[in-house]
Amino acid sequence: MTTLTKIEQQFKDLLKEQASYHEALALLQWDLRTKAPKKGAEQRAEVIGLLSQKLHQLTTSTEMKNYIDTLKNKTDDPIIQRAVEECEEEYLRSSKIPDDEYKAFITIRSKSESVWEQAREEDNFELLQPYLEELVAYNKKFATYWGATTNKYDALLNLYEPGITTKELDQVFGQVREHLTCLVKQINASTIRPDANALAHHFPKKDQESFSLEILKRMGYDFDAGRLDETVHPFAIGINSNDVRVTTRYDEEDFQMAVFGTIHEGGHALYEQNISSNLTQTPLATGTSMGIHESQSLFWENFIGRSEAFWETHVDLFKEFAPASLHDVKFNDFYQAINEVKPSYIRIEADELTYCLHIMVRYELEKALIDGDLQVKDLPEAWNDKMEAYLGIRPKSNKEGVLQDIHWSAGDFGYFPSYALGYMYAAQLHDQLSKDININEVIATGDFTPIKAWLTKHIHQHGKMKKPLELITDVTGKSLDASYLVNYLTDKYTHIYEL
Amino acid sequence: MTTLTKIEQQFKDLLKEQASYHEALALLQWDLRTKAPKKGAEQRAEVIGLLSQKLHQLTTSTEMKNYIDTLKNKTDDPIIQRAVEECEEEYLRSSKIPDDEYKAFITIRSKSESVWEQAREEDNFELLQPYLEELVAYNKKFATYWGATTNKYDALLNLYEPGITTKELDQVFGQVREHLTCLVKQINASTIRPDANALAHHFPKKDQESFSLEILKRMGYDFDAGRLDETVHPFAIGINSNDVRVTTRYDEEDFQMAVFGTIHEGGHALYEQNISSNLTQTPLATGTSMGIHESQSLFWENFIGRSEAFWETHVDLFKEFAPASLHDVKFNDFYQAINEVKPSYIRIEADELTYCLHIMVRYELEKALIDGDLQVKDLPEAWNDKMEAYLGIRPKSNKEGVLQDIHWSAGDFGYFPSYALGYMYAAQLHDQLSKDININEVIATGDFTPIKAWLTKHIHQHGKMKKPLELITDVTGKSLDASYLVNYLTDKYTHIYEL
Repeated sequence: MTTLTKIEQQFKDLLKEQASYHEALALLQWDLRTKAPKKGAEQRAEVIGLLSQKLHQLTTSTEMKNYIDTLKNKTDDPIIQRAVEECEEEYLRSSKIPDDEYKAFITIRSKSESVWEQAREEDNFELLQPYLEELVAYNKKFATYWGATTNKYDALLNLYEPGITTKELDQVFGQVREHLTCLVKQINASTIRPDANALAHHFPKKDQESFSLEILKRMGYDFDAGRLDETVHPFAIGINSNDVRVTTRYDEEDFQMAVFGTIHEGGHALYEQNISSNLTQTPLATGTSMGIHESQSLFWENFIGRSEAFWETHVDLFKEFAPASLHDVKFNDFYQAINEVKPSYIRIEADELTYCLHIMVRYELEKALIDGDLQVKDLPEAWNDKMEAYLGIRPKSNKEGVLQDIHWSAGDFGYFPSYALGYMYAAQLHDQLSKDININEVIATGDFTPIKAWLTKHIHQHGKMKKPLELITDVTGKSLDASYLVNYLTDKYTHIYEL
Repeated sequence: MTTLTKIEQQFKDLLKEQASYHEALALLQWDLRTKAPKKGAEQRAEVIGLLSQKLHQLTTSTEMKNYIDTLKNKTDDPIIQRAVEECEEEYLRSSKIPDDEYKAFITIRSKSESVWEQAREEDNFELLQPYLEELVAYNKKFATYWGATTNKYDALLNLYEPGITTKELDQVFGQVREHLTCLVKQINASTIRPDANALAHHFPKKDQESFSLEILKRMGYDFDAGRLDETVHPFAIGINSNDVRVTTRYDEEDFQMAVFGTIHEGGHALYEQNISSNLTQTPLATGTSMGIHESQSLFWENFIGRSEAFWETHVDLFKEFAPASLHDVKFNDFYQAINEVKPSYIRIEADELTYCLHIMVRYELEKALIDGDLQVKDLPEAWNDKMEAYLGIRPKSNKEGVLQDIHWSAGDFGYFPSYALGYMYAAQLHDQLSKDININEVIATGDFTPIKAWLTKHIHQHGKMKKPLELITDVTGKSLDASYLVNYLTDKYTHIYEL
């Protein structure tokens, strides 16, 4: 027992060392994306390369292997047990790929990312095609190293959403797709036409910032453990457990960008800010999966931020910051405008309802690339066919089609489903939350901390102690169920579009 | 030869690795001092500790020792030769102190720094005394390890100002002190009384910032390789050779704080921004000494920024940003106000003329602590006596006396002289510059890049390739000479105070 305790301590010291490299890397990245002068970026890349390499060495070290072998299933400390499991997964994943193959993959990936930029700009898929072919081949190979035989896509999925399988996704995505395509058709036939232009008034950046800060405050974001900055692409990043930063983007002619962007990233940040301090400086001190993380951002952005209750009770607050020309917009016009449904080509500009359909397109294509017989060269056509089938529109260029996202060019296959899973988790959590507390009453007070407290109790505090499906089952009493999202969207949009 | 070239390359790779740790550490520090949320600071300290330790391990590694032994005086590359010398100095310095003693020193030093804050706040020297006694003892011991026998203070001086000795300092400081004390007496007797209050008008921060940015631009500061932020204590920091940042402080009732603070830190930054790119990612890619660094900041702040020529030719620029109430101040009143001489207790608030006397007090005391018979317990009395002798005023508390600076509490003895050396170097460089180009004509154009170019050619580009005195001799044709400072100050203040 004494020996084990000493070894446990040494193991924790190694975890701290890893956490320190993670923190330095996170700050280097944050700085590059927010404040860093452009000429310094080249040398900065070398620093990031070196520290990443050091971190990788710790992850795959003999020392780490020894701790895993000595401690796994032999410790009484549940945190250490889970940390050992995480480290083992990471160790196996990294050590099973031969060094030279991993290096070749990294090289092709970084080339591919810059080729993607050019290909997108020139609307030239052929330029990117050979890179994508190599990246698909590497992903298949890696999945084989990790033990996959028939279903390699599952092994990739597991990187982002542990425990979720293709079989499960086919079922829930199928259910959602069927209802959404149907809803989209009904909405297209509706005579109700929300007018997004009703909100296109000049709203000075400074005032948008003040409004954004006020909303973050109401959500319970801790400004002594974070800060808000401006970037072209908004993001949230955990630098350490008491330093979780948010960025947003201001468009003076479209305040929705900053407001909903801030609420979205604030949702991610609340998750990272409220993980139990017992997990600090272990690999468990972060969100448990991409999907659960996205459930937090989407919950706040859509279920709270785009709700009728929020704007009904915050109209006075809005008027404090908004220009006079926006004061006269009728409530119903306002509410409809922020919830306009309009099939569009670009995923990141999609509305709450059609967003999931964009994900289905990508999910089915990447699954077919990895485990089916879809060839990279046939991607553009396959993409356009699916867009037409699910959204009723056919992209006129690859730029607004298959070339729009960086994910595949960055070698990431299996990541996209997390976005749609986030919607489903969020809807399921929202249903449970509304049974436990009166959400609209809380919103009306202007202090959302009871909602934050509920999320912290059930989701945030656990970090990676629970896997995604375990977490959802513990909170809601059942595993992932797509009906919640279907019901929520059907209710909301039937009401808005008088279907 | 081939072997050597290969080893040279490996040595350079090790230097790059060191440079990467330096860069990460610099950014972690910059962030802590500018943007970091307060709650994250504790964990941040651990990260800084870990990376510093890794850097220290590289500095004192067997690998490093091998490169030094193999390459020293055996390479044809002058940059590698100088880098080897630097690495050797650092290696010897670090490896000669036993690990446990160094750790104990670090521990006592970090305790002492926080005790100093309390002691200063409570005006209680006795609280700090035992810590200072230990720190003095460690400094003496370390100097002995580094080979010092009779003159240990020289060994400490060498850490900050390589090549400067106590003998030399006694001579130049003696000369400066004699003239300055005399000048101060004459000024006290003068009927001219500059009125600093003439400039105490409300000057909005935003406008001060715009003015500061404009001056930095005129100095030739490269904003694509740097940025300006706001902090309580202004500083400049080189993160990498293309990322050198500046901070300043805004006081809306006293614009001098921001304007002269920005010019001062801008002077430091120009140095780091203009080091030859051949030295990048070696230990030579930084200022050659604390004194030469300070010469650059003081040159810009005083010799340019507080000059008659600057304000005569920039009055229109000033009026673009300054509030209307400041437009009416007469030029002579303005010029006198920014150059008011007034003996004061606090070093960092001292004027250009009395500043050096504050340094003399500290120099003589720390020299006596290390090599003489001054006891720590007698410091407060000795401090006050010297202040009275040199500045004609006697502090009424230790808070405005011996407790005002953190340096000794941080274990730094031998650092203070650099500040006064900076004044002397700056005066000597200014004299040479005024022979080479017509400074006032350049200032009048509003584009100071010819001055920057001269400094880059003679100082900046060389980084640590030349030692301080070598640099000064190469530029001015003679070694350090205090007469330049004495003449400059005598001329300037005789004119202002009509002595």
